[in-house]
Amino acid sequence: MEQNFTYDSLFNFSKLVFEKMGCSNKQATEAANVLLSADLRGVDSHGVARLSGYVRLWEAQRVNAQPDIKIIHESPSTAVVDGDSGLGLVVAPFAMQVAIDKAKNAGTGWVSVQNSNHFGIAGVHAMMALEQDMIGIAMTNASALVAPTFSTEKLLGTNPIAVAIPAGKEPAFVADFATTTAANGKLEILQRKNKPAPAGWVQTKDGSQSTNANELKNGGALLPLGSDREHSSHKGYMLGSIVDIFSAILSGANYGPWVPPFPAYVPMPQNMPGKGIGHFFGAMRIDAFRTAEDFKANMDQWIQRFRNAKTVAGEEKVIIPGEPELEMEAHHKKNGINLLQPVIDDLQSIAQKFELTLL
Amino acid sequence: MEQNFTYDSLFNFSKLVFEKMGCSNKQATEAANVLLSADLRGVDSHGVARLSGYVRLWEAQRVNAQPDIKIIHESPSTAVVDGDSGLGLVVAPFAMQVAIDKAKNAGTGWVSVQNSNHFGIAGVHAMMALEQDMIGIAMTNASALVAPTFSTEKLLGTNPIAVAIPAGKEPAFVADFATTTAANGKLEILQRKNKPAPAGWVQTKDGSQSTNANELKNGGALLPLGSDREHSSHKGYMLGSIVDIFSAILSGANYGPWVPPFPAYVPMPQNMPGKGIGHFFGAMRIDAFRTAEDFKANMDQWIQRFRNAKTVAGEEKVIIPGEPELEMEAHHKKNGINLLQPVIDDLQSIAQKFELTLL
Repeated sequence: MEQNFTYDSLFNFSKLVFEKMGCSNKQATEAANVLLSADLRGVDSHGVARLSGYVRLWEAQRVNAQPDIKIIHESPSTAVVDGDSGLGLVVAPFAMQVAIDKAKNAGTGWVSVQNSNHFGIAGVHAMMALEQDMIGIAMTNASALVAPTFSTEKLLGTNPIAVAIPAGKEPAFVADFATTTAANGKLEILQRKNKPAPAGWVQTKDGSQSTNANELKNGGALLPLGSDREHSSHKGYMLGSIVDIFSAILSGANYGPWVPPFPAYVPMPQNMPGKGIGHFFGAMRIDAFRTAEDFKANMDQWIQRFRNAKTVAGEEKVIIPGEPELEMEAHHKKNGINLLQPVIDDLQSIAQKFELTLL
Repeated sequence: MEQNFTYDSLFNFSKLVFEKMGCSNKQATEAANVLLSADLRGVDSHGVARLSGYVRLWEAQRVNAQPDIKIIHESPSTAVVDGDSGLGLVVAPFAMQVAIDKAKNAGTGWVSVQNSNHFGIAGVHAMMALEQDMIGIAMTNASALVAPTFSTEKLLGTNPIAVAIPAGKEPAFVADFATTTAANGKLEILQRKNKPAPAGWVQTKDGSQSTNANELKNGGALLPLGSDREHSSHKGYMLGSIVDIFSAILSGANYGPWVPPFPAYVPMPQNMPGKGIGHFFGAMRIDAFRTAEDFKANMDQWIQRFRNAKTVAGEEKVIIPGEPELEMEAHHKKNGINLLQPVIDDLQSIAQKFELTLL
């Protein structure tokens, strides 16, 4: 069972919830904007379905609703931002804006963030750079669900990377992907449908192959992009490691198995070496390299050449990164956002808690 | 059949060959250094086995042995370098040095390169940053051998990414990987042994699965990291695309299917939109974020934690990126470098051409 909601109703509801948590009007607006952008783009796992998770983190006092987010170290093209335990949904736009401001003067800006929390959908942060004719980059570490190649222990998060690149007449190129073979959200869909997972997505607690979509509950792990050694899982492991190090070791956040969990009921790791979760953002001004006009003309040609490539039988076209999400966005803006009953129930219980009405 | 050579003998021979091509003493030394670093690190496919390929590119007048390599555009943290059709082995260290010099002042340096050629082993360029307490990044595009997800056409090169990160007592973290499931060098090994390739490495010209290690000769293609859609080949496709765009569209080099081929007998693409091959380099000063001391202490802990993780039965330890290559380097420095007979024959024919002696 599902029900349709307008963007505005879900945006306003989310904003009110963040305000009830104690967020300022400005921060509540920013947080609701990031959250709803995920629903618009069809990345349901990072949208309002997570709102209750953020509320529980706040209830567990793992999130500070009135953070003093600030730069604690900087150079002409870099900064480290302390998120003061704020919502990642708010810390991330702050830090991305610092990267953009640095890029205006220095050509590029690079910001590593400590003491933050789950920042929602990576792609939307990276896309902040587009309207400035900049390339935007966003990545974050996350609590450990992934076993490096040869390991039975979970030491890395799904550690996503997003890169947004402006084009001319064509829509921007927006890549946004977990460094695992399958994102956790895809496993959750299979769990709800009681279906098996394809081989190569997860391993058992001993590191054997598994097709059990619930294997993580038995001590198993997600697999890095590549799945197994023969298919270069060490490359996914390296990518996830780079995200971890850029996000947390450059900033002084927690890394590897010490990253704080998103679910508030999961205990915090012992002997944490840093502060909170870490992120990493970048902004590169196109005209610090070439005129934006020349760059965009080449991007348009690139996009058209790839989109019009000959396809494998049965496939309509080669997909340009970001295009499906853009189509989703147009669809959801026009037709509203469908939510599944468990998500609606979740939102209703938040409404009750804060004496709000979910329209 | 194989034969053992000292590092010095192969270095000196390669250097003399580059000098015979017309390179200056300085550039011949640099080129030989990059080439031999690959042999030392066990990346045979990018070492002296490729020397004859560079000679043939020079004979075909696709390489300029006396290039005027220069910055053609810059900002405090960025530059575009024109390689003037020089050997990538020489253009790359020049551009990486520009990135390092920019980072000294601006905190980071980012250099996109046009009008270059094959730059050899990516990791060694990235590693130039290590002795400055910087993170180094190197990537390059290459001629199209890879089919994006759903495509039967080859539109991307193996487009490698290298990231070198300094540590304290531990050796540096050095990731260096093609954005494909299998590098072309691994297929060549199977071809020589007349063995099949694992499923997921290549596809036929129609985009069907294949285990034929010679499938590229039939019009087939390498597959992006992830192998197929179910195992997220679109992520490998996105990674390869990002490398292509950063290397070539930021610089004004050729991209996608228009990248010049390495083998001199392969005709140049028609209607090339840019100049030569493109690269992208980055350098980030650690202390533009945090003290190098704190950073390195955390890196040591990260490395030790991962190396000592519990392993899948039969595996000795979790591998830290760069460790196997470092062990290889020590081994080859001590014991010399073994070359296969076809490589020796190749070097002998170069020796004859230039009236040199291969010791």
